Amino acid sequence: MSDVWISETLYGGWRQQLRVNRMLAQTKSAFQDIAVFENEDYGRVLMLDGVVQITERDEFVYQEMLTHVPLLAHGAARNVLIIGAGDGGVLRRVLQHSTVERAVMVEIDGEVISLSKKFLPDIAGDAWNDPRAEVIVGDGIEYVTNAPDGAFDVIIVDSTDPIGVGEVLFTDSFYRHCARVLTDNGLIVNQCGVPFMQADELRDTSMRRAQFFRHVSAYVAAVPTYVGGFMTLGIAAKGEAPGRQDVATIRERARKAGIGACQYWTPEMQVASFVLPPYIARNLPGYTPEA
Amino acid sequence: MSDVWISETLYGGWRQQLRVNRMLAQTKSAFQDIAVFENEDYGRVLMLDGVVQITERDEFVYQEMLTHVPLLAHGAARNVLIIGAGDGGVLRRVLQHSTVERAVMVEIDGEVISLSKKFLPDIAGDAWNDPRAEVIVGDGIEYVTNAPDGAFDVIIVDSTDPIGVGEVLFTDSFYRHCARVLTDNGLIVNQCGVPFMQADELRDTSMRRAQFFRHVSAYVAAVPTYVGGFMTLGIAAKGEAPGRQDVATIRERARKAGIGACQYWTPEMQVASFVLPPYIARNLPGYTPEA
Repeated sequence: MSDVWISETLYGGWRQQLRVNRMLAQTKSAFQDIAVFENEDYGRVLMLDGVVQITERDEFVYQEMLTHVPLLAHGAARNVLIIGAGDGGVLRRVLQHSTVERAVMVEIDGEVISLSKKFLPDIAGDAWNDPRAEVIVGDGIEYVTNAPDGAFDVIIVDSTDPIGVGEVLFTDSFYRHCARVLTDNGLIVNQCGVPFMQADELRDTSMRRAQFFRHVSAYVAAVPTYVGGFMTLGIAAKGEAPGRQDVATIRERARKAGIGACQYWTPEMQVASFVLPPYIARNLPGYTPEA
Repeated sequence: MSDVWISETLYGGWRQQLRVNRMLAQTKSAFQDIAVFENEDYGRVLMLDGVVQITERDEFVYQEMLTHVPLLAHGAARNVLIIGAGDGGVLRRVLQHSTVERAVMVEIDGEVISLSKKFLPDIAGDAWNDPRAEVIVGDGIEYVTNAPDGAFDVIIVDSTDPIGVGEVLFTDSFYRHCARVLTDNGLIVNQCGVPFMQADELRDTSMRRAQFFRHVSAYVAAVPTYVGGFMTLGIAAKGEAPGRQDVATIRERARKAGIGACQYWTPEMQVASFVLPPYIARNLPGYTPEA
């Protein structure tokens, strides 16, 4: 049994450690430190700058919720923009929706894509070769700055936390352009961290987006290796408020899109995930506590 | 800054570590190893046999859900039995319900009670001195074996995992007696671990209880320091199925019981917590996946 452990370095006095049964890749790209290794509990694990991004065994939680919720909250998404998500897991799930005609994925770090192709091939599956997929190695903020108005129905931002390379994806300028390149009923989702430990991330992102979107809210997912209770996925819409649809509507949209049973996502889970505990809800604009 | 860390020892290749800024107590009782220490992220932390039981900062999640959900699913609980929960946090929240006339708490390890009174006084608050509280240092299974039929409306089992001292609280014999000492519309709740890592715990407990209770189900809570995604709270009822009530019913019951705004629990959260991801639901008896 290996006695090498990797510690996650996000928080001051609390950390998760994963045993490294076999190190598969450990490198420094132009943007970040990358490590891929095997672990007995989680299978293969991808870490960027010391933070767990994805594991083979629990990736379904985050990826299903980051993808199916916004696409089915929209209901008729044809053009989808993915920023980040170099492992290809979001791309694969976006392409499961038969309504989608074009999925553009912009990942800044080509090393993440090539290491994922080599060591985490099941996460993206055949998505890389789908004719509807367009994979660009480039800067996400530059891409949205230059993209035409109304080009996308849904934008999914699967970034690291707002430190290092991911920081520009949490700025006013980025959200302004995202709002512009979305259609009138377009919506954007991005990971907003674990509010129990990083409440600022949800609060700041929500306030920034409230400048450019009619509806700003969030939903939750309990991801095993994003430790600290619920992680939040921030969602903002120019049209219909996401989270207001009922289970029957979501189920019917899923049926039309060809989305069947998942491991975490269901129509009921989609609706329930918008119910927030007060300790999270209080970070959203316009929150008023119950008497 | 202290460089002493305590590792949780639950799983093989994955663990959480907490920095020990100050060790307050470290002892071996007749039943288990007990540690209480200060941590910068979570405040004071109680560990039993190397497993985190409670922290000052996140205790509200587990305690609110373990208490308010069953009491309000019942709706008119007057007599409540608590097994374990030596820190007193469940007792405190049970006594917040004005409907409750008597709360019996049976904790096997008197050392946990006295260390909690000394080092974690805010968790129980004044509950120890409430005239409705009866605190017994003794064996929970012995207590239910000798208790009269129909003595309690709700039983809350706040045990460690089914290893060591908590093991007898996961047996057929224990559940048979619990069913007997409950009223005809009584219900029991107990922690069933984190199914992503410990699916057996939910599966076995649910099958055992299905022998003695009409309705067996579970609900979820995302507890920061019970790492691994959702933890499940197993619930079994002799009468009305818990989890079928709507938000308005729960809100009205809470109003009558004098339960106001919490940090995690709300009427909406109570209803949403019974919506289970398939990876958890499949461990319950009678689960049929959606087509």
